Amino acid sequence: MEWETRYAGRMGRVKSSPIMELIRVLAERRVINFASGLPDPAGFPAKTLREAAAEVLTEDWRGALQYGEAEGYRPLREWVAADLTTRGVPTRAEQVLIVSGSQQGIDLVARALLEPGDLVLTEEPSYLAALQVFASYEATVRPILTDGEGLDPDAAAAALRQPGVKFLYTMPSHQNPSGATLAPERRRLLLEAAAAAGVPVLADEAYLHLRYDPGEPGPLAAAAPGAHVLTVGTFSKVIAPGLRVAWVAGPAPVIARLALLKQVTDLHANSLTQRVVHRYLSAGHLPAQVASLRAAYRTKRDAFLHALTRQLAGKATWTYPAGGMFLLLRLSPGQSPTALLSKAVDEGVAYVPGAPFFPAGGGEETIRLNFVSPALGEIDEGVARLARVIGP
Amino acid sequence: MEWETRYAGRMGRVKSSPIMELIRVLAERRVINFASGLPDPAGFPAKTLREAAAEVLTEDWRGALQYGEAEGYRPLREWVAADLTTRGVPTRAEQVLIVSGSQQGIDLVARALLEPGDLVLTEEPSYLAALQVFASYEATVRPILTDGEGLDPDAAAAALRQPGVKFLYTMPSHQNPSGATLAPERRRLLLEAAAAAGVPVLADEAYLHLRYDPGEPGPLAAAAPGAHVLTVGTFSKVIAPGLRVAWVAGPAPVIARLALLKQVTDLHANSLTQRVVHRYLSAGHLPAQVASLRAAYRTKRDAFLHALTRQLAGKATWTYPAGGMFLLLRLSPGQSPTALLSKAVDEGVAYVPGAPFFPAGGGEETIRLNFVSPALGEIDEGVARLARVIGP
Repeated sequence: MEWETRYAGRMGRVKSSPIMELIRVLAERRVINFASGLPDPAGFPAKTLREAAAEVLTEDWRGALQYGEAEGYRPLREWVAADLTTRGVPTRAEQVLIVSGSQQGIDLVARALLEPGDLVLTEEPSYLAALQVFASYEATVRPILTDGEGLDPDAAAAALRQPGVKFLYTMPSHQNPSGATLAPERRRLLLEAAAAAGVPVLADEAYLHLRYDPGEPGPLAAAAPGAHVLTVGTFSKVIAPGLRVAWVAGPAPVIARLALLKQVTDLHANSLTQRVVHRYLSAGHLPAQVASLRAAYRTKRDAFLHALTRQLAGKATWTYPAGGMFLLLRLSPGQSPTALLSKAVDEGVAYVPGAPFFPAGGGEETIRLNFVSPALGEIDEGVARLARVIGP
Repeated sequence: MEWETRYAGRMGRVKSSPIMELIRVLAERRVINFASGLPDPAGFPAKTLREAAAEVLTEDWRGALQYGEAEGYRPLREWVAADLTTRGVPTRAEQVLIVSGSQQGIDLVARALLEPGDLVLTEEPSYLAALQVFASYEATVRPILTDGEGLDPDAAAAALRQPGVKFLYTMPSHQNPSGATLAPERRRLLLEAAAAAGVPVLADEAYLHLRYDPGEPGPLAAAAPGAHVLTVGTFSKVIAPGLRVAWVAGPAPVIARLALLKQVTDLHANSLTQRVVHRYLSAGHLPAQVASLRAAYRTKRDAFLHALTRQLAGKATWTYPAGGMFLLLRLSPGQSPTALLSKAVDEGVAYVPGAPFFPAGGGEETIRLNFVSPALGEIDEGVARLARVIGP
């Protein structure tokens, strides 16, 4: 059968990236891997999670093994609501939907809102897998001028006034791929401009807690009470991504609609791992875990920045990540990280070319680097290899 | 903000069912609950799963807690492929995608194939949550004449020849809601007619293994080698639904496309519970587990059929389920299970009116009954209450 002729039109926008496929292959070679999108498994609280799983499967196995509510495990929704409330976003459990990773949160919001041809505003660069979601609903992404302090408020206000804008997607804190954080004074301006334009904001707070400098940002929604923000958050970066537990928070009627869509999509999030995460949280393990991750990742970030300064000053520029997992390196105009990739792998270092993170094209001379995934002892050597690839 | 004006058109087809909402409320009252869609938690192998989880989180915690491949955990894909091969459907691991429950398998196939206005053929009645998926992609469902032996082959062949048919969805064995199984001689005819029409078949084998009579059916795909079948299977009914581990199998290029879509949707299935299920399977626990479930569910089915015969002969007719979890009761013309529902709950018994399972309308005098979820000792009394509600 000619399956290719039977796919829906949207599948024309769901494609494997040749670069990503290449990286997948390359990552299996023995290289220092700055290409990864993964957190460092050394940070997973495996023993505590093992104990939590044993307790859940002893004391609450009926719940953990049975079908559950589309909205998610009620005590976990209550925990998320209480945590958001303490962070300046007053939230009730009815305003929280548990989802299977923040990717699913983004996908559900997009599925609920996007018609083919709708506009989605984003940072430039922006998170590649979110861009892929918006493309899959045949939307058009329009990036907004972005600098080291996040979205430019005037550019955002102008972009928000365009007709046909369905929502604005932002990763306000320590974003992927640049590590940039939206400056405090810009947050209120952005939310006011969005409200004035009648455009909702989808805030992806995946890296909120991975802060290495003083001045931890709050969730974007805390910047303007009553703003029209849907917030996506996840336990993937602070506990473990394999558990697939994340959440969407927003107005209760919107969450109710998203829950109906969640039910159509896959009924509900994992009953077992929702309970394991809730037990972990309610036992009070999270603050120490976050502190431990911050310490380990801060050390790596500092080592990475130090190595970049020593090895690449004058050859490239790079963003400064106050948190998160990534920074973006920019080579000289005319240099192509895509063309250099196989040479880099021969040299023993892998990275992701940054161009796919630029929704309107551009960024051809940029590289995304993961500074938390490599071992601390590999960072200096990996950056030295990168310097040899880039050349004098 | 007027959120209602911002939703995509597809959300007009994603609605909560008033009946389902009513049942959700009613089910919290102290009734004998035949309305449930759930398996009996007494059948969950909790202790073995607890041990498997402890082993996975000791020996393979790095894999169980980390991001994984979109296609799923390779050893589990290999297990599913080998199992399908022994059941007459030669399958390689590349032909298997692990998904988060069979609902997600159905949703991914629909998302890959359906354009607004496309036709989907189904049994009549058919599985409500699959109908909701097809509606969410703005497809039109056309039911095919169905009897106690499943889809009528001549009616199916005629329906398959219509223009605009994207695929045929069937639950070949012990279907939800009627319990009907497609007769062996009809299987080959159906697949031949589909191949002649160039229409793929989506076979939902969720209840395949829950067989209480002799003559266990195989997967539909085994009936005609080389047929264009996508098979969805799940561990929800034979191990535990809360783990959210299921699969889609089909031609390797189609599975690769579905894996790309899975990645956009939610990256990948749960790393921990995929490994727990695989460990359970590879330790060889499944055959004894299935035998135990069959014995328990067979006893309940027999008790249910016996009670129906004693209490409702002459007042109603009902389907005969050789397996599965459900049967469909048909009252006299003019009687309305929907209108009788609150009286039933006052009497102390809950059920689901069957009408929503009929995609083109009709079925107003039918009731879906779950015979595995109630306790064995409740069945006779529950059917007696039902008889009082229905009246003389």
